[in-house]
Amino acid sequence: MSAYPARPAPAGPTVDGMTEGELLARILPLLGDAGGALVGPGDDAAVLAPADGSVLISVDTLVEDHDFRLQRPNGHRTTGYDVGWKSAAQNLSDINAMGGTATSLVVSLTLPPHTPVAWAEDCARGLAAAIRGLGATGCSVVGGDLGAGAQIVVTAAVTGTLDGRPPVLRSGAAPGHVLAVAGTLGRAAAGLALLEDGRPLEDSGPVGELVAAQLRPLPPLAAGPAAALAGASAMLDISDGLVRDAGRIATASGVRLDLDPAALQQYARPLEDAAARLGVDPLDWVLGGGEDHGLLASFPPGALLPPGFTAVGSVEPGTPLVTLASQATVLRGWDHFAH
Amino acid sequence: MSAYPARPAPAGPTVDGMTEGELLARILPLLGDAGGALVGPGDDAAVLAPADGSVLISVDTLVEDHDFRLQRPNGHRTTGYDVGWKSAAQNLSDINAMGGTATSLVVSLTLPPHTPVAWAEDCARGLAAAIRGLGATGCSVVGGDLGAGAQIVVTAAVTGTLDGRPPVLRSGAAPGHVLAVAGTLGRAAAGLALLEDGRPLEDSGPVGELVAAQLRPLPPLAAGPAAALAGASAMLDISDGLVRDAGRIATASGVRLDLDPAALQQYARPLEDAAARLGVDPLDWVLGGGEDHGLLASFPPGALLPPGFTAVGSVEPGTPLVTLASQATVLRGWDHFAH
Repeated sequence: MSAYPARPAPAGPTVDGMTEGELLARILPLLGDAGGALVGPGDDAAVLAPADGSVLISVDTLVEDHDFRLQRPNGHRTTGYDVGWKSAAQNLSDINAMGGTATSLVVSLTLPPHTPVAWAEDCARGLAAAIRGLGATGCSVVGGDLGAGAQIVVTAAVTGTLDGRPPVLRSGAAPGHVLAVAGTLGRAAAGLALLEDGRPLEDSGPVGELVAAQLRPLPPLAAGPAAALAGASAMLDISDGLVRDAGRIATASGVRLDLDPAALQQYARPLEDAAARLGVDPLDWVLGGGEDHGLLASFPPGALLPPGFTAVGSVEPGTPLVTLASQATVLRGWDHFAH
Repeated sequence: MSAYPARPAPAGPTVDGMTEGELLARILPLLGDAGGALVGPGDDAAVLAPADGSVLISVDTLVEDHDFRLQRPNGHRTTGYDVGWKSAAQNLSDINAMGGTATSLVVSLTLPPHTPVAWAEDCARGLAAAIRGLGATGCSVVGGDLGAGAQIVVTAAVTGTLDGRPPVLRSGAAPGHVLAVAGTLGRAAAGLALLEDGRPLEDSGPVGELVAAQLRPLPPLAAGPAAALAGASAMLDISDGLVRDAGRIATASGVRLDLDPAALQQYARPLEDAAARLGVDPLDWVLGGGEDHGLLASFPPGALLPPGFTAVGSVEPGTPLVTLASQATVLRGWDHFAH
């Protein structure tokens, strides 16, 4: 007898067309409970409670041709440096969104055999440059894994510390709280739209800066701990778009979040030239674009917003949803499997 | 001006034909130093030293068609359950090899759109079953990431605790120490050879058990902490083959490791039927096969070997290399990019 019986091959529906949330709902119950973790799956990072303190941990993956393209029809090349930078940035951002500071990264690099060694080296340089450049001075790459595959896949896991503070979860927003954003909105989405556009791009100037925002995002790493110290009641990393991510706070907190269109204009205005070039509404990028890795947080009434935060709306009682000037919004943002 | 100038596409050599060690030697210096980590890259797991204790962390990836095959020419199918089990097992083993116990897993799952949902669910079941079945009772899956790609890629990062003990590194073996193994040797390699063989396989009996050893390895998770308590001077996870992994202790410790062929016979004998079927020497599997995820450790003279450990050789002075009855061995084992 085999120690473990062979299992039949699964049939039935595929993940194609499912939302990430739908797939998660199928998988999470099968993983067992999160044991001794203070916070398990479902927030920006988990919070472990070892005997001697607490540790934040999260993981994020970038896949060639899904999360980045090595070369685009307009000739633009995404470098290893870009991918390394983005991998570090998106992971550091998850720790930021819990109100913590990052302490380590481990990185798994899957490379097709034809990958230039210089690409892998450039990826390492980008990781290190993002850690330094974004100010994650307490963080370093402490380990990793190398292997071969058909596509480049970069997965990083990040740990962080809360320095004794409680984590800022998604579930603490309450009616009357102020909704605020740190970092930029819509710039990475504008950069992606410019990259996806067939026409050649300027490397510098306003277009180059928007493309850089997509390739090498600048999460505001000081803002997360500052928000925690200022008493933020809920917070997350805007990685899939303002409306979609706000919906996550709305659902977790059981509140309606109302966005103020006038406050969002300051994010849309600098995108107007790029939007005109592509014939789109810049507010769509502000509302639907992720990957700037800014923070969305709620603060109790009367709390002083910490430096870097701008009020963009309010927390209201009611069915969990996101409204714009009290009007229903269409859900906009990114999902991996849905079309 | 772009905030970060665009970088030219890299040219030059590719990773094809490089050893993992050669590629690592190019990449590691570019990542910056390991900062405040007590142990950085190069051992089974890193050791972080936050203000409030120490944390082990490691990461490992499984890639479709490189680390597993969904279907083989003989009709055998690798299930999601198998891949989930193996992902958990190989990560838990890295913590075991430091003398620690695992506290959490975060798992990133990259799935082609045509992947059956049932496969992903089966993978989650396999992860949970390995954690339970291998006895990692203090560990749970606390987070993850889902995304699309051309191949299935499962990356898990694992954290662990040392419960106040120092980590068992690769560098402490000294002449006169006893070399010992916990767990099995060569069974996973025999299972892989049977899977790669074109002929149909029995699901049960000795063949089924060897195939199970490849698909769902059984790292001896109690043995790592027991070895640490018994004073092990060096230890690692045998994942790339006994000789190759022993070479890592030899290099890190600056010693020669001499394996005793008589002691290895007890691992080779149960593989004789399978070896005869394939016309190979079972000792090749014992010396060169990885993926059983047993432990190789050295103990000071006079130390009582903890339960589960079997003496297989000795630590000798001299040039760092691995010998078999004092004769040079040919390096055998697995490398991702080399052919």
